[in-house]
Amino acid sequence: MLYLVGLGLGDAKDITVKGLEIVKSASRVYLEAYTSILTVGKDALEDFYERPVILADRDMVEQDSAEILKNADKEDVAFLVVGDPFGATTHSDLVLRAKENNIDFKVIHNASIMNAVGCCGLQLYNFGETVSIVFWTDNWKPDSFCDKINANLKRGLHTLCLLDIKMKEQTIENLMRGRKVYEPPRFMTVSVACQQLSEVSKNRTDCEFSPSTMCVGLSKVGSDNQRIVAASLEELCKYEQMGDPLHSLVIVGKVHPLEEEFLKQFYLTNFDNKAHFS
Amino acid sequence: MLYLVGLGLGDAKDITVKGLEIVKSASRVYLEAYTSILTVGKDALEDFYERPVILADRDMVEQDSAEILKNADKEDVAFLVVGDPFGATTHSDLVLRAKENNIDFKVIHNASIMNAVGCCGLQLYNFGETVSIVFWTDNWKPDSFCDKINANLKRGLHTLCLLDIKMKEQTIENLMRGRKVYEPPRFMTVSVACQQLSEVSKNRTDCEFSPSTMCVGLSKVGSDNQRIVAASLEELCKYEQMGDPLHSLVIVGKVHPLEEEFLKQFYLTNFDNKAHFS
Repeated sequence: MLYLVGLGLGDAKDITVKGLEIVKSASRVYLEAYTSILTVGKDALEDFYERPVILADRDMVEQDSAEILKNADKEDVAFLVVGDPFGATTHSDLVLRAKENNIDFKVIHNASIMNAVGCCGLQLYNFGETVSIVFWTDNWKPDSFCDKINANLKRGLHTLCLLDIKMKEQTIENLMRGRKVYEPPRFMTVSVACQQLSEVSKNRTDCEFSPSTMCVGLSKVGSDNQRIVAASLEELCKYEQMGDPLHSLVIVGKVHPLEEEFLKQFYLTNFDNKAHFS
Repeated sequence: MLYLVGLGLGDAKDITVKGLEIVKSASRVYLEAYTSILTVGKDALEDFYERPVILADRDMVEQDSAEILKNADKEDVAFLVVGDPFGATTHSDLVLRAKENNIDFKVIHNASIMNAVGCCGLQLYNFGETVSIVFWTDNWKPDSFCDKINANLKRGLHTLCLLDIKMKEQTIENLMRGRKVYEPPRFMTVSVACQQLSEVSKNRTDCEFSPSTMCVGLSKVGSDNQRIVAASLEELCKYEQMGDPLHSLVIVGKVHPLEEEFLKQFYLTNFDNKAHFS
């Protein structure tokens, strides 16, 4: 059996009791380590599980899934994913390959940012389509997220923005020379995301959001030291105290009274009320 | 401290390790029992936790929150919620009342249907706004969900439909006489939801979905005997083998190749390919 086990968002103890039992008894345990990160590393997980864990990077999962699935028709293999197992497309792909090989699979669900974002007080059923915001380069500044945010705002809906993660990036030189030398991981911060959004809002006349649009920055959701800050897009561009990754961002749509009352506790102390609700 | 602890979707073992530690050490433990249900009841939870649990119905949470929060500034109180704690508005309200009384709170997140629905293979970032479908009566047939589904389908997005739950309902006679006599709980099935949707699609000319629109019915997501069935709206109207509650429904939008490949495993065996993708 192939078990896809969600680890939730915080630390080692955010695994479910059912998930932990599977991890303890499985023949092999893989940790997917490229679509998201926990606040603790592999070592902390191994200590807590009292067993070794194999790191699975993107190359391994996408090109060497046979290794992961080996003998999984006869023994139990656990594949650990930060958040919920169906947060990323690659995991659907692994399940399909298991099925091709007549290997059964089971999913142990857990929290993901897609539902845990509710901790800021904005109701999940008032969110529209989720968008991804990728790091811009000098020559590549995609802004297709703008159409999606526009469509959400026109309907009064909030938008969860998932911020880019770069794991095992290679410089162009290293890539061309075939050198497997990787850059340190990079995680987009709330302020960088807001700077990109702010630039789009100034360059595109059809943009439904502006530098004064109310946004919510979140970091390390689900951990003891999570942070939630509500302020205008402009203020969040300059706000550098969001703390360690991972960060997420919400573009706020129409707020209902209970949402507003809840959100108030997260207003920046120097919040001067310039930010407005859409 | 007030702890809001998500229980996830399946049985007692879907609580996180962190959540279980809190439940075991708290002074009092309440179980919210009106917005959702687990596949196991209060007794199974008490056996697993090895401690008593107090059932909290809607009246208690909304009208007697002082009782729940009593002494929570000095001791730990756990409030257990099926799924994730921020799935329902009433829990935001409890947190706000805690804050008014200078009681700190912490959230232990878990899976909810809002992210676990990804198990059908449709990607979460291709979902639009979630809708609720309530039981129609002879005189009250709200169809405002139609506008939201329309808006999602126009953008190619899937729609998660949360189906009505009636807990502790009173007949009009019992209500008027002030008799606290309650009807048995009722849970909307996929087929009833589809019948209502189908009627709307026939009555409204602006409807973006039709009886032949591809839908996905889900039951008991996250449990060992969960069921997922993909078929046309029309076929699901007549499909009575979805199993025990809770049920959920997805109106499928534009499907990407990987989504379609994954979804295929859930096609009704007698699926005659009449259903189409939007």
